[in-house]
Amino acid sequence: MPAPVNPPRGMRDLLPAEKAKREHALSVIRAVYRAHGFDEIEAPAMEEYGRLHAGLGGDNEKLSFSVLKRGTGPEQWGAAEDAADVADLGLRYDLTVPLARFYASNQAQLPAVFRAVQIGPVWRAERPQKGRYRQFVQCDIDVLGEPGPLAELELIGATAAALDALGLEGASVRINDRRILTRLLTTWGVAAEAGGQALITIDKLDKIGVAGVVDELGAQGVDTAGLHEAFGQLATAGWDLAVDPPAWLDLEAYTDLLALRDALPQVELVFDPTLVRGMGYYTGTIFEIAHPSSTSSLGGGGRYDGMIGRFLGREVPAVGFSIGFERIVDLLPDRGGETVATALLHDADVPVAALLDAKRRMQEGGGRVRLERTRKNRRAQLDALAAEGFTRFAVVTAEGAGDLRPLA
Amino acid sequence: MPAPVNPPRGMRDLLPAEKAKREHALSVIRAVYRAHGFDEIEAPAMEEYGRLHAGLGGDNEKLSFSVLKRGTGPEQWGAAEDAADVADLGLRYDLTVPLARFYASNQAQLPAVFRAVQIGPVWRAERPQKGRYRQFVQCDIDVLGEPGPLAELELIGATAAALDALGLEGASVRINDRRILTRLLTTWGVAAEAGGQALITIDKLDKIGVAGVVDELGAQGVDTAGLHEAFGQLATAGWDLAVDPPAWLDLEAYTDLLALRDALPQVELVFDPTLVRGMGYYTGTIFEIAHPSSTSSLGGGGRYDGMIGRFLGREVPAVGFSIGFERIVDLLPDRGGETVATALLHDADVPVAALLDAKRRMQEGGGRVRLERTRKNRRAQLDALAAEGFTRFAVVTAEGAGDLRPLA
Repeated sequence: MPAPVNPPRGMRDLLPAEKAKREHALSVIRAVYRAHGFDEIEAPAMEEYGRLHAGLGGDNEKLSFSVLKRGTGPEQWGAAEDAADVADLGLRYDLTVPLARFYASNQAQLPAVFRAVQIGPVWRAERPQKGRYRQFVQCDIDVLGEPGPLAELELIGATAAALDALGLEGASVRINDRRILTRLLTTWGVAAEAGGQALITIDKLDKIGVAGVVDELGAQGVDTAGLHEAFGQLATAGWDLAVDPPAWLDLEAYTDLLALRDALPQVELVFDPTLVRGMGYYTGTIFEIAHPSSTSSLGGGGRYDGMIGRFLGREVPAVGFSIGFERIVDLLPDRGGETVATALLHDADVPVAALLDAKRRMQEGGGRVRLERTRKNRRAQLDALAAEGFTRFAVVTAEGAGDLRPLA
Repeated sequence: MPAPVNPPRGMRDLLPAEKAKREHALSVIRAVYRAHGFDEIEAPAMEEYGRLHAGLGGDNEKLSFSVLKRGTGPEQWGAAEDAADVADLGLRYDLTVPLARFYASNQAQLPAVFRAVQIGPVWRAERPQKGRYRQFVQCDIDVLGEPGPLAELELIGATAAALDALGLEGASVRINDRRILTRLLTTWGVAAEAGGQALITIDKLDKIGVAGVVDELGAQGVDTAGLHEAFGQLATAGWDLAVDPPAWLDLEAYTDLLALRDALPQVELVFDPTLVRGMGYYTGTIFEIAHPSSTSSLGGGGRYDGMIGRFLGREVPAVGFSIGFERIVDLLPDRGGETVATALLHDADVPVAALLDAKRRMQEGGGRVRLERTRKNRRAQLDALAAEGFTRFAVVTAEGAGDLRPLA
């Protein structure tokens, strides 16, 4: 027996049932985003090595796959001092760096406020583990060029509508603002230059709990007296803080969040002053989507005004929302049986013209049709077809197709 | 002014209108192939370096982009003797090598006769020129495991139906069989080992004409006496050769082609004994799709029984049809105006709640809705919206949306 043949490490083959589910989900998401006024674009899967390593990708830059310079050989490789000498391109590790490059290249042809959809694979050399892949699909929407709250409102509204359309009703959105975190840290006496590290720690609240976070902050030199209580108050903070605002609250940012909540009555917005979101480039609102059927977030995003303009040479207001496509697909049921699918069983000696004629007739009623040679074990064959999502079958002879019978 | 920022050399950004057209075409193609009993699958964009350079890709292997081995540095690169020492993965240059690998990995979970659809980008380091890109989409269907003519018939039938559904009616299919070419060359006294080179020459008939082909064959040592006349006969060969078959005709293969024609009355099949198709792996039927609106072929394929089983260690009958997606997209009209799209124009001071409310109401009627700040030059703004495919507009104030007016 030959050695097993596998896809590259950490990458997946998508079999028919899984692929059908994914394409269905993508078509639903595309239709909702389009209805909400977003326009899909596509940038190449590769970008220049330098752009992928310009500091916009955070830790993901280290996980980037680099593409060997064409036309080089041992002589050039021998003189290479770092990867930039042997690689001139790389595979994108997210859709945000390509968006910044795309916007710099094409801005003159885009509307003043550009609502972008990007859907496509990204590649990261993650350590392979369950549920984490080296190629996976990202699904981002971004509003570029809008400094006001309309950007956040349209993004959150469109994303909630997309989840509803997928049958994942009941999502809620945790929301915060980087300005609130900044003031909170100042109140706690954290110096500005230590703020980034403190945020990384607070971001671990879900994993290591209040005690773990307070310990880590203490180790960073933060005065932890009263911090346990402070986290207790933050955990219960809601939408009623404006009347008698606590000292740690940035009231202007909070009022902006209140306005978002009031303008989006159809979405449950939950204020969470401990929400951090990993990427360092966020500058304002940040949000994350939660759903009762999943313990981890189904996506998130925020305002990142400093980044999209980096390759353009001027600042461009930007807010983005990335839904966790791979997680969402895992929550969806298989598509089997949702459309009419007919299996036409036939012996080897039925003339092909009769088979094609039977197939054509069956297709006229809509749905899908597959011709399949009869196997000895009819029961096993029918079970396999039902498992593939076929709903009915008929036997074809030289005289034509017999009666249609249900498969399940 | 900063230097222009471009996508990597030979690669394209897809702007909204182009992307919408492509996604629409893909959804039409997917639906037709699915109805015809084909199942979409997806393999990763990367494959192991060795598989991409196993001799299955013909000349495309040389155009392959290689991906740098992770965790290597100058020390390893300095000792490298060839690309396989610095690269362990590569980007696929076609969808056929990945299909062979996919089938070897997953055959136990697939039906005995597997009808595959694969749609996705491939990458080739082509010399950039008009209409030729380093990343482009391929769209393949293949029937694996079916030795008989049903495979060819279903492929050609499904492809013709997909073109019809795209609005490209009137396609015809040129068809030939490698066995016919083999016998033809034997009749001309071409030795078996010189056959490959002779086929490459005959494949240039469209470009260099009969005189050019005969000259090149002569330079290869073929006796060219009577060859001009022979090409004249081949050019007029039709479906009436079986009664009094000429000496050069492989009658068995020709009879098989006749049977295909008779079983597919809805597609115009044209016998073309000079049709070669580039790839060396074809073993039987070969076909190419022609359309009155394009001088170049819109796709092609054939039977390639020796290849799919290469990684599996046994022979698997296979026939494939690849439509030229990029060419087909160029023939399709823009999608502008085909759906209701409403632009809601508003001044900067209209409250966001009123804007969102107006957007929601408009969406209830279906179609897409975009909010847009009013510009000073109303006429220019409306023209730009019409060019983007918007069909109507209304002005929104704090009181709500005014009358809907047509844009075109």
